[in-house]
Amino acid sequence: MLRRHGLVAALVLALPLCGAALADAPKARPSPTAKELLAKSSPGEWRTPDPANLVYMQLPQGRVVIELAPAWTPEHAANIRTLVREHYFDGLSVIRVQDNFVTQWGDPDGDDKARARKLGTAKETLPPEFTRKIDAKSTFTRLPDGDVYAPEVGFADGFAVARDPKAGNEWPAHCYGAVGVARDVGAETGSGSSLYAIIGQAPRNLDRNLAVAGHVLEGMQYLSAYPRGGEPMGFYDKPADRVTISKVVLAADLPAAEREKIEVLKTDSKTFAAIVEAKRNRRDDFYTLPAGKIDVCNISVPVRQVK
Amino acid sequence: MLRRHGLVAALVLALPLCGAALADAPKARPSPTAKELLAKSSPGEWRTPDPANLVYMQLPQGRVVIELAPAWTPEHAANIRTLVREHYFDGLSVIRVQDNFVTQWGDPDGDDKARARKLGTAKETLPPEFTRKIDAKSTFTRLPDGDVYAPEVGFADGFAVARDPKAGNEWPAHCYGAVGVARDVGAETGSGSSLYAIIGQAPRNLDRNLAVAGHVLEGMQYLSAYPRGGEPMGFYDKPADRVTISKVVLAADLPAAEREKIEVLKTDSKTFAAIVEAKRNRRDDFYTLPAGKIDVCNISVPVRQVK
Repeated sequence: MLRRHGLVAALVLALPLCGAALADAPKARPSPTAKELLAKSSPGEWRTPDPANLVYMQLPQGRVVIELAPAWTPEHAANIRTLVREHYFDGLSVIRVQDNFVTQWGDPDGDDKARARKLGTAKETLPPEFTRKIDAKSTFTRLPDGDVYAPEVGFADGFAVARDPKAGNEWPAHCYGAVGVARDVGAETGSGSSLYAIIGQAPRNLDRNLAVAGHVLEGMQYLSAYPRGGEPMGFYDKPADRVTISKVVLAADLPAAEREKIEVLKTDSKTFAAIVEAKRNRRDDFYTLPAGKIDVCNISVPVRQVK
Repeated sequence: MLRRHGLVAALVLALPLCGAALADAPKARPSPTAKELLAKSSPGEWRTPDPANLVYMQLPQGRVVIELAPAWTPEHAANIRTLVREHYFDGLSVIRVQDNFVTQWGDPDGDDKARARKLGTAKETLPPEFTRKIDAKSTFTRLPDGDVYAPEVGFADGFAVARDPKAGNEWPAHCYGAVGVARDVGAETGSGSSLYAIIGQAPRNLDRNLAVAGHVLEGMQYLSAYPRGGEPMGFYDKPADRVTISKVVLAADLPAAEREKIEVLKTDSKTFAAIVEAKRNRRDDFYTLPAGKIDVCNISVPVRQVK
């Protein structure tokens, strides 16, 4: 009645009960679920993120784990590491939540030069690492169904990416959970001291206009569920509404025992390809008409806890 | 410093200061903002939604306004109207929030036949109104940039839609804010007694597998910001976490003075076309590289309050 197992029911297997159904069985065979495919994955298909690229951001509701993307934005990754190590973010806040767009954090007093927190030894401006030259050595796995915004899309170096072979460049796409670098009007004004996470329909028009410095591996459910701000663009109108970031640390700076034990499925693995295909053509009793297509931003890279 | 006006800054106009810049001015002219375009719209470009299609759902944080879509799902619209008028939803709950997917509401005891609320005179099953035959008389406004999932996309009868001319059918797309009808495995098991709103990246693989019975005109910021549920698929594990729906009414059943005074921009209007074009090619000091493209689910149909 409730359809509790309705909307994304995929666990009920279709058991053919008559000859005709049996004859059709190979075609009607339910597609495996991501869970089933992941259970059969091999250890070598998983990567352990480099602790030097893992940022832990402590919010009242829990920990957010961000993986930096030095393969795409090396100077931003380095600057964010510096800011984290000098405790720049500790005590700052989520300052903005705009529905169907972004959650942004940083210094609420950042606009006020007298009161703004100092960046320490971090740089105040950085080169605009919005795209990179196509890296022939990277493990680009192209998706087959095209894209509205770019000539090609797929996954490379663990990130959802788009690329333009004619222009010779590629860039991480602003998909759900992408972490971008807020900036002023000038392209070089982003330092990484204020970051945003995408919380709605992928605003792909940001691609190539802002630097994607990482993506959220864990904790999106906190960043996406804060009350939307009352000011234009979702800034909080009342300081009391802001959510305080108690502490931000780099995994590499913690003893190994205190680090998150997580692994990320390699995007050039057979299991990842199988998950993409199962999602493109989901066949089970519930989904009677498989889409046969997939958008790059409809695929989440699996993350798992290990013991 | 804070980039408070950074991420989506569009209000700063580029004033050319030298001859060369002046010569380039037509090309570099900033695109108008949606706000500017809406300010110049004519009254005839707006429609007043039919009160018989407007559902007001009262949540603790505020009112959600849903426009039903009888042009697409007539039997579902009729059944939902019956459920609303017989107070089926009053006192029920938001029962499920799955991050980057859906917020679903209905009867928490719906799975328990003994305890489930009765549907009154509403039907328990409905024909699967997942698509309709292409309506040559509708005001389909096609978008120019294609789509990953369907041969054509655009707007018709006020909704973001996709269509397949070869198959001869069209359907509302599962974009952010779309309201769908939860169901069991059988295609006819949806009644409208449990509904969901899309709160993340458009899960377009739901298209043609579920009925889109409406879309949210106001109040998405409440539906999108509830804590995500702890059970699989985002169902709340603790009853106390559920959000109570105090009352659901049809606008048509309220005195005119108590109805929301809202208008919706017609999707076949010049102003809507101009907004789409400005979003496709956003040119201002902040966006240095216009996307030149737009996905159907990246366009929100403007809604305004009138006096």
